[in-house]
Amino acid sequence: MSSSDDSVHARPVPASAEPLYDPDIPTPSHAERARTLAARLTTGTLATLSTDPEGYPHGSFVTMAFDAGDPVFLVSTMAEHTRNLQRDERASLLVAEREQEDPLANGRVTLLGPCSRVAEDRGAEREAFLATHPNAAYYVDFGDFAFWKLRVMSVRYIGGYGRMSWVEAADWHAAEPDPLASAAAGIIAHMNDDHADTLPLYCNTYSRASGIAEASMTGVDRYGFEMSAITPDGPRPVRVAFPVQVSTPREVRTALVEMLKAARG
Amino acid sequence: MSSSDDSVHARPVPASAEPLYDPDIPTPSHAERARTLAARLTTGTLATLSTDPEGYPHGSFVTMAFDAGDPVFLVSTMAEHTRNLQRDERASLLVAEREQEDPLANGRVTLLGPCSRVAEDRGAEREAFLATHPNAAYYVDFGDFAFWKLRVMSVRYIGGYGRMSWVEAADWHAAEPDPLASAAAGIIAHMNDDHADTLPLYCNTYSRASGIAEASMTGVDRYGFEMSAITPDGPRPVRVAFPVQVSTPREVRTALVEMLKAARG
Repeated sequence: MSSSDDSVHARPVPASAEPLYDPDIPTPSHAERARTLAARLTTGTLATLSTDPEGYPHGSFVTMAFDAGDPVFLVSTMAEHTRNLQRDERASLLVAEREQEDPLANGRVTLLGPCSRVAEDRGAEREAFLATHPNAAYYVDFGDFAFWKLRVMSVRYIGGYGRMSWVEAADWHAAEPDPLASAAAGIIAHMNDDHADTLPLYCNTYSRASGIAEASMTGVDRYGFEMSAITPDGPRPVRVAFPVQVSTPREVRTALVEMLKAARG
Repeated sequence: MSSSDDSVHARPVPASAEPLYDPDIPTPSHAERARTLAARLTTGTLATLSTDPEGYPHGSFVTMAFDAGDPVFLVSTMAEHTRNLQRDERASLLVAEREQEDPLANGRVTLLGPCSRVAEDRGAEREAFLATHPNAAYYVDFGDFAFWKLRVMSVRYIGGYGRMSWVEAADWHAAEPDPLASAAAGIIAHMNDDHADTLPLYCNTYSRASGIAEASMTGVDRYGFEMSAITPDGPRPVRVAFPVQVSTPREVRTALVEMLKAARG
């Protein structure tokens, strides 16, 4: 599987519009973005191969957890997908965000690989699954239920419009979900509600933009943060890197305060 | 495909608990429930067969509409699923509800069948798709986009816990979505907010239940309505049929008022 980045469906932008920031500043890789997206989701679509009708791909709704990047399922031997996997282990799992109103603007990841029954039902897979789905304790020990695991060998990532690629399985397994994923929405709301007046200064000091008088924060991750800056041509994205990698909201705060002091000083 | 009803995962109920209503009163068929569920959804997972890795089922996120029960997609020739379908038309679409907090309590339907490009891009498929996705007008005439249609030949319906079956394709195509589907939530809220005091009378008069003093409405469809009746053994489901089929909120109101008068008279 070759890695390729085919950004063919980007929304149109003026041909003259150079990015307002250096695109080479530290940014999450597609593997990291995909791992971050998947880590926050607990349900998805498992695709298996059916025998009736013969050879058809059969999508079914599943709950899942992740064990070191590999999806784990707790399924009944009586379910169609389990019967299918018993005959043919080829499978994929699609997980998809739902936040954006425009459905195609949401990120999603397809994980392909063989899916087989976990030999030891008391191991890491059980722990990961029950941590994500505590209510499954109700049926985890039913005789017809068992843990199955999809060993990821191929990853298709679509981050919304214009951001898509095949991610190498090794990169998928090596990547870590962003440590700020669950805190990001709160940080963004706080900055926009209480410190919106400071955001233009970050744009004007730490990017190629100048004369920005209004901006809002749109994203934050371990490597930096993103804003939408109001320009005479309309809103434009601006990304600014943190001086060092951060992993907690407190570290984000420290970095932002230091950058603001330096910008003013 | 044989039709079968394997209600193996029903939540446990006391073995002695006979239904509080005649299970043979008019009730939506699984084909009707599945059509109703699907008609309200506009996104799903398309499963196709990939070539790299070879023969794997590949699930991808899609927007769709329905044309007489067959899903219609507007996809780019550059998308993985389109490339897959050009080589092998075998496909399925999973659509799943999201209302219930318990993910496995939600209804979902898998539609399997060959998926091929629509010959005439100006026909019913275009009309159905743009009615459901007006924003697609923005890219519908891009050169690399075309309509594709999955001709349903096999239907797997899972209505939540304990309600699942294979539905015959002929039944799927003959069934109609419930005309009250979009109004049901409003009717239920109105009955529970403003007329909860009348619900026990429906239970005690029109079902096998007696002595019910508290009940809430949980569902309504063209054939009747469902309640959760508080009994000494806890909440129990009660279904009551309308005297005649209804298709509008006004007809529901008329039927409920007539039934109430008769119960009091």
